Order: sequence, then C-alpha cells, then structure tokens
Amino acid sequence: MKLLFIGDVYGSPGREAVKEYLPKLKRKHRPDITVVNAENAAAGKGLTKKIYNELKETGADAFTMGNHMWDKKEIFDFIDDVDDIARPINYPDNNPGGGIVKKKVGNKTIAIINAQGRTFMPPADCPFRKLEETVTEVRKETPFIFIDFHAEATSEKQAIGWYLDGQVSALAGTHTHVPTADERLLHNGTAFITDVGMTGPFDGILGTNRNIIIRRFLSNLPERFEVQEGRLQLNGVLIDIDDASGLAKRIKRIQINEDRPFFD
Amino acid sequence: MKLLFIGDVYGSPGREAVKEYLPKLKRKHRPDITVVNAENAAAGKGLTKKIYNELKETGADAFTMGNHMWDKKEIFDFIDDVDDIARPINYPDNNPGGGIVKKKVGNKTIAIINAQGRTFMPPADCPFRKLEETVTEVRKETPFIFIDFHAEATSEKQAIGWYLDGQVSALAGTHTHVPTADERLLHNGTAFITDVGMTGPFDGILGTNRNIIIRRFLSNLPERFEVQEGRLQLNGVLIDIDDASGLAKRIKRIQINEDRPFFD
Amino acid sequence: MKLLFIGDVYGSPGREAVKEYLPKLKRKHRPDITVVNAENAAAGKGLTKKIYNELKETGADAFTMGNHMWDKKEIFDFIDDVDDIARPINYPDNNPGGGIVKKKVGNKTIAIINAQGRTFMPPADCPFRKLEETVTEVRKETPFIFIDFHAEATSEKQAIGWYLDGQVSALAGTHTHVPTADERLLHNGTAFITDVGMTGPFDGILGTNRNIIIRRFLSNLPERFEVQEGRLQLNGVLIDIDDASGLAKRIKRIQINEDRPFFD
Amino acid sequence: MKLLFIGDVYGSPGREAVKEYLPKLKRKHRPDITVVNAENAAAGKGLTKKIYNELKETGADAFTMGNHMWDKKEIFDFIDDVDDIARPINYPDNNPGGGIVKKKVGNKTIAIINAQGRTFMPPADCPFRKLEETVTEVRKETPFIFIDFHAEATSEKQAIGWYLDGQVSALAGTHTHVPTADERLLHNGTAFITDVGMTGPFDGILGTNRNIIIRRFLSNLPERFEVQEGRLQLNGVLIDIDDASGLAKRIKRIQINEDRPFFD
Ligand SMILES: [Fe+2]
Ligand SMILES: [Fe+2]
Ligand SMILES: [Fe+2]
Ligand SMILES: [Fe+2]
Ligand SMILES: [Fe+2]
Ligand SMILES: [Fe+2]
Ligand SMILES: [Fe+2]
Ligand SMILES: [Fe+2]
Repeated sequence: MKLLFIGDVYGSPGREAVKEYLPKLKRKHRPDITVVNAENAAAGKGLTKKIYNELKETGADAFTMGNHMWDKKEIFDFIDDVDDIARPINYPDNNPGGGIVKKKVGNKTIAIINAQGRTFMPPADCPFRKLEETVTEVRKETPFIFIDFHAEATSEKQAIGWYLDGQVSALAGTHTHVPTADERLLHNGTAFITDVGMTGPFDGILGTNRNIIIRRFLSNLPERFEVQEGRLQLNGVLIDIDDASGLAKRIKRIQINEDRPFFD
Repeated sequence: MKLLFIGDVYGSPGREAVKEYLPKLKRKHRPDITVVNAENAAAGKGLTKKIYNELKETGADAFTMGNHMWDKKEIFDFIDDVDDIARPINYPDNNPGGGIVKKKVGNKTIAIINAQGRTFMPPADCPFRKLEETVTEVRKETPFIFIDFHAEATSEKQAIGWYLDGQVSALAGTHTHVPTADERLLHNGTAFITDVGMTGPFDGILGTNRNIIIRRFLSNLPERFEVQEGRLQLNGVLIDIDDASGLAKRIKRIQINEDRPFFD
Repeated sequence: MKLLFIGDVYGSPGREAVKEYLPKLKRKHRPDITVVNAENAAAGKGLTKKIYNELKETGADAFTMGNHMWDKKEIFDFIDDVDDIARPINYPDNNPGGGIVKKKVGNKTIAIINAQGRTFMPPADCPFRKLEETVTEVRKETPFIFIDFHAEATSEKQAIGWYLDGQVSALAGTHTHVPTADERLLHNGTAFITDVGMTGPFDGILGTNRNIIIRRFLSNLPERFEVQEGRLQLNGVLIDIDDASGLAKRIKRIQINEDRPFFD
Repeated sequence: MKLLFIGDVYGSPGREAVKEYLPKLKRKHRPDITVVNAENAAAGKGLTKKIYNELKETGADAFTMGNHMWDKKEIFDFIDDVDDIARPINYPDNNPGGGIVKKKVGNKTIAIINAQGRTFMPPADCPFRKLEETVTEVRKETPFIFIDFHAEATSEKQAIGWYLDGQVSALAGTHTHVPTADERLLHNGTAFITDVGMTGPFDGILGTNRNIIIRRFLSNLPERFEVQEGRLQLNGVLIDIDDASGLAKRIKRIQINEDRPFFD
C-alpha cells in the first residue's frame, strides 16, 4: 500500500500547489491513499467547508489538522457530519470531531490519526498515552496506521516516533512548516520523519508574507498577517507499506519548488 | 572560498564522528575553512579545554556555540584566551568571550558570528538589531561573513535569513539537532538553511539515550540524561562563496549515517 | 509628596469603579498625583482617545500601560501627541510613544516610568539595564521616580525592586490583576509591591467573564471574551514620598470591594 | 473545623520560622488541623525524610507539594510508606505517591488534595477534570475538602476556584511565593486565595539570595542558588469551616514578619 502525505496546505497558494502537482504526483507514484494536513488551508488559518470540498475534489482522501483546527468557526458546523477529518485525539473529550479516520484501500483498512505535542504548545492530554491506547485499540482491526504528529519540539516528535516504532506504519511530523531531511525507517519498521514541511508560498516565512513577519520581529507591534504571494512549493512524503505486516518498506521525501522542480 | 560547517557535535559519539569523517570530507571537498558548533561537545553539554583542543587537532578552525555555552564551568577559564570561539553576540555585554571570530583565508578574511533566538528560548538582546549592527560593522572590513543562528523556532530563523539576505555569505541555523531539507540561495545571494542538524548518535533523541527521553516524557520524573550509544551520524553544510562578492554560489547539505553512507 | 496608583483599569466596570471611588479617595487621601494603569481600559484590551480623555476627566494625571498597549489601533493616532502616557521603556526603539512621563507637583518634578518583564512574556530589551540607564539619567533632574513594572513572574518583579532599591521612590508591579499583600519599604527606602491588582469586575477572572474563562480552560476552543458584569472592585496603592530625599516613607494598599468597603 | 495552611516552607529559614511561630499560632488560633506545603523544605528544593519528620514534630499534620516534589531523590524511598503527603493528583499515573491525604478530625474526615497548574508550567493532566473527578469521589465520603492548587498563572488559579466553588471547603493557591490580598468566600461557600505566599527568608527573592538572583537576571550565566540569610517570614491562611456543611465560614490571611509582627 502506498500512502502520499502532503504537509500543511497554506492558503490559496497551498491549494494552487496541490491542484497543480497532486494529479501529477498521483500519475507518477500511484498512491493508494492521499492524506493532506489542512490546518492552514483557509487563508493560513483553519478550514472551511468550501475549501474542504475543493481539496477532496483535487484528490485528498483524508485530512489531518493541528493547532489551527478551530480558527475558522465554520468547521464546527460540518466536522461532525464528515468522516475524513482527523482532529488531534488528545484534545479535550468535549471537543467536536473524532480522532480517527478509517479508509478502505482495496480489502484493507488504514487508520489515519492526528495528535498534538505539548512542548512549546498549549496544554493537551498526554500524546504518548493517548496514542498508545488508540493504536492498541486500532491494531485489533488493522496494522495499517498512519499518524500525523503535529508538534513544535524535535525531541517530542522523535520520542513519539521511537515510542511507537513497530506499532504503526508511519509517523510524520508537521507544524514547523519546514521539511526535515531525517526521513528513515526506525528499527522495528515504522517510517518516520520529524517534519514534512508545508505546501504553499516558496518565498515567505512559513507561508506568511516575509516583510510582515520581519517587521513584526523588529517592532512587536500588531500586524495583519498576509499570505506571501509568488512562487509555490509542495512538501510531502511517500510511504510504501508492506501489505502483509503493515510496516513500512520505504519513506521518500517529496519536495517540489523552483530549486527542486517536478520531473515525471 | 569554501566553508564547511558541522552541526552541534554531541558528546563523545559526536567527536568520534568528526574524527572519522572530517578528514575524509576535507579530502573530498577541500574546504578553505571548517566551522564546528561545539555547544554539546562535552558529554552533551558545554565545552572543555581538552575537547576544544581535540576538535582543533581534528581540523576545526573556528567554533560556534549556543544555549549550552556555559554548561561546563571550565570554559570561563579559557574563553577569553582564545580567538576562535564565537559566543552568541546577543548575550548580555557582561558575559565573557567576544561575539566575532575572524579568520584569514589566503588574503581574505572571513568573519564567523554566532547569535541566539528568543522564541521559546531564554531572554536575550534582539538578534535582528544586534546582527544588523554587527554585520554593518564587519562589512567595512570584509564581505565574507558566516552566521550560525542558534534558535528553536523556524519562523525566527527564516526571518533572520531573509532580513540579512545579501548582507552575509551564509546563515545556517542550529539547535533543533535535526537537519532541514530547505537549504537554498535566497534572492540576494545569501545561502540559507533552517537547521543543519547534529553530529553524534544516530539512534538517540537529539543525541540523548532514547529510552531515557521517552521515560521522561511519560513520567516527568527527573532523569539523568546519558548519551545514546551505537551508530553515528554527521550533519553539516558545504557553502561555496564567490571570491569577488562574498555572496554564496551554492549550499549543499552534508549528511553521513548508515542510511546515507559517505562516498569518496 | 503623595502618589496614588490605581491598578489595571479593566473595561467599563473599571472606569465605573474609578468614577465612583477616585473622587472619594482624593478627598480622603489628598494625593498630589494620581497614576492609572490603563492597558485594559477599553473593553479589557488597550486604550482609545475617548477613554483616555474620560479617565483624565475623572482625575488621572498620568498613565502607565503594558502588554495590551497596542491592542486598540487608535492609540497609534494620539500616543505621540500626548505627554502623559508612559509606554514600556524596554519596547523596541522604533515603537511610537516615549517611555517617561514627567509631571510637575508644586515646585518638584516626578517621573513616571513603565517597563515590562520578560519571564513568561514576549521578548523585550533587558528591563534591568534599561531601567538602570533611565533612572540614572532621570536622577540628574529629580529623585522623585515612580515605576510601574508590568510583569508576570514574581521573581523578576522582586529582583527589579531590590535592584533599584534606593534609586527610585517606588516600584509597583502590575499585570497579574491580583493584589499582593507584600507591600513594604525595602532596605534603602524604595516602596515596593509585587502587584497592585486590577480595577473592575469583582466576580470575574482577572476581569473577564468567569464562565467563559472556565469553559476555555476545559475545552481549549476559541471563545469571544467578555467583561464580567456585576459588582466592582478597585485596587491600588498610596505612596508617601519624603519631600527631601525622594525616598518612600510609607506604602499602603488600597482595596475597595464589597468585602472591603470604602470608609471615609 | 479550623484549618491552618502554611505556604511553601523554604529551606532552613522556613523550618526555623515554622518552629518559632507554629506553636504560637496553634495556641492563638487552635486549628484542628495544620497543613504545610513542603516542596521547598529541603534547602529550597524538595523534601527529605529527616525534614519531613522534623516538620511533623513541629506540628504539621499533612503535607502538600508542587513542582519541586521530586527534587530530592530520597523522597522516592519513603513517599509510598507515609499517608500524609499529598502529591499533585494530575501527575502521570505512573508516579509514586497518591494524590489524596485523609485525616480524622474528631469524628469527621478531611481530605487534603494537591494539584498543579499547566499555564507556564510543565505538561500535566487537566487539573480541572482531575480535580472534579476526585472531588466528586471524595464527597461521597466527606464534604471537608482542602485543595492546595500549585500554579503560576492567576487566571488558572481563579478559574479552578470558581469551578469548584461550593464543592470544596477551601482552595488555596501556592507556587508564586508571594501572598495575595484577595482571600474571600466565593458565592457558593468555598474559601479562596490566589496564593498564600512562602515561609522562610524575608529579604530574599522568593527565598533565594537576592544578589544571586539579580546577578542571574543581568548575566543569564549559571549560578549556584543559595538560601537568603537573615530575617524570617511566615505566610499562611486560617480557614474556618462549617461543621455541618463543610463550606467555609471565614478565611483569614496569616502574615508574620518584621513589618507585621506576631501578636498573641
Ligand atoms: Fe501548520
Ligand atoms: Fe500548526
Ligand atoms: Fe545543540
Ligand atoms: Fe542548543
Ligand atoms: Fe492588565
Ligand atoms: Fe498585562
Ligand atoms: Fe514553592
Ligand atoms: Fe512551586
């Protein structure tokens, strides 16, 4: 089974990059399932129904989120009516949405799970315990498990990876918006990468207009953030999962931008 | 001019990796100057005189540091006697050590500067202002300037990079201990990478024993950290600087580990 | 010289409390100057021209601020036209407003200074250095100096107090919105209190509607904050300064609420 | 029922203050039970068996702790053998010690509970949920419940107070080491104070030598912390609980220092 995961789609440049490159990536790599982190899809913050539908039409099969989950109020109106958006499972129990998305891939089922870190981030339930409980439960049904761990600190992300090594097919980090070059198979067969990076503007700062961000660092004055215009990038990973064991056989970084153009 | 920069050398595994691979890298790439981040060189925390000498003998020409700068008290005894350790320039003025290292490369001079971020880190003077002032001053003498910006947040690192674009040869981030895959030339000729990663254990968590770190995340109980044993990695970047302009012509990630073995 | 300082005036309940009690306090204590922290005066966040004028008419002679300084954009339009709003002096130099307010009290001058802490707060210049420099400069003109140190951590506030002990008339903390019971004269004659508390709703959480805050802690979901309705409180300190030395003779907590009613 | 609670006893000055004033306070106020926060009892960090015994002999009936809980390794050896140390109940389940201490007072039982905040503090389980569950369970047995909520942020402390108002006899905050002047009865009968302050040196910074702390703020260099010598203070609260309802009738701040001497 091949899974394609696309990192934080940021605003309209991110959706544009997905529209341009996802069909090409599908033709080239023939993933069985495509997962997209959509926490920044609507103007950099949150997700609307319209954009959710747009991303599905472009080829996304399932969605993960993160700390920008609730930035667009609209999501409260549809999150409980859909079954393909994974909200972080270690959010408080009273939050809308469910933590796990399950998708049929041929005669197999793959579970997509989202969780959030706690280091340099808002309080949440222990992601280690919550993921272990959830994974133990899901493994009764299927060994095909993909986790998007949305977190700031590299230590927490690597610790979760090693902690679940051998229990899940792959664990990919998101949130820092910068792809890391440490993709690998851990000792017991879980594919891991600290961060897959973001999809959207190539010349901004994490997607936002770079002059605004610099001005903000220099003054600490309030600024209205805007999406950076101009050239695009797409960042993701392609994971090849063994059909028998559910463990990973390969993880490959996907980076498309003007310095690393797409080749068929 | 070619500059080789090696990311946070972590404990004895880090020094071992430098000893094994730095001579080979020098033979292969023929850098004119080799800079090493040494904030974790002594058992993961700080730098001693002995280890400083050891790293120099192995081929380091200049050193950058970071938040572990003062972890080994011994450094107070020799920091002011040497001229090749750059301590973060935005530390309080009353701190020992100076911020800038200058090295002769043929008939040229290259300045090596270290600064530290403030997002998710201890207070420090504004790195934007301090770097701008320092760079303006140094450029009166030479356009060959290398900055190691030691910081946690990807936004702060990228902002500093764009802010100084065209004013320095290269700005490489450190501190997260994970190499990023976003090395590039910015619009005005500065080479940039968010983080070069660390040099040391390949199977730990940022260099530390992975079981200890996981246990710590699960219990919050105090733990005595230990260096991870076993296989090694080296991470760095090679930067090719134009001899006329001092701007970068190329930045290339150097990653050596068992998944990415060294080739002559 | 007697100085009355009123802690963070919060929204319309805060202004109402000032209107009700400031005239009474003036009749009772006859302060020579009244300073008001106004960072929350406009609906809990920031300050507008209208409310600034309203507070002046009610009897405020000078204003201090804090991290909500710029929450109402309007302030950028008038901050540079008035001479009685002290913005934190350790904000970046490019910020509008000046750090020091000087007021004539009879034939004497008192300087009102505002600074902001860095522990658990956004980056800023070192408040210790910036205050020392400023105080040294101001003391050439007058020994009557009042500082509102707006900070979260008790350690940082007490450290600043002891650091400036004997150099200023008084240093009062703000920001936590809870009055502390540690008002005292330090060894060399500076009056000190860790926090004077806020002025506004008596039954909210730091001024905000308590049910909203509780819901927010339980869910982490976005909430529109509202000012708590109902009963009021006023918190402040009265400082008696020696006319010869500029040092404090006495510091007295002022607390008015239904449990501690105002007596003539 | 009368409960005396003494805030964070800090090092030997703290123990000395307890030895000097606790007997006098007992004679004067005749509390039925005395609870002591002991997280800083051993040289400012943690608790040893010897000091635990010493404090019991001086008159402490039960102990609460906080983030310095595990600073002295020795506590792992005896925490599970004693029944009068309440460790924060929202620490991970795998931690030694239990969360609740139960004490007989005549024919009644009082439960002493310790919990820790999460704002500006290390991750922990949700204190709102954990306290609500625990209190609901304990109330099946007794309405006499005292909570020491060890937390930094005033908002989190006040929110917990209002959240449990009417469900517990009293909730007193600790950790900032500065007594607040906001002790009160909430609407439904719970006694509340944001922080009771610490017990130990009167002229230090939160108990620590003030010159060391100032130097540390100025340099960010590592410092060996030492307990401040000299004059002493004791801070606490006296709570009068209704024997029928278990709700509070009165809360009174206890502050003893040279500015506020003890009177019989
Ligand atoms: Fe994101
Ligand atoms: Fe995020
Ligand atoms: Fe490091
Ligand atoms: Fe570091
Ligand atoms: Fe405020
Ligand atoms: Fe504030
Ligand atoms: Fe404490
Ligand atoms: Fe504490």
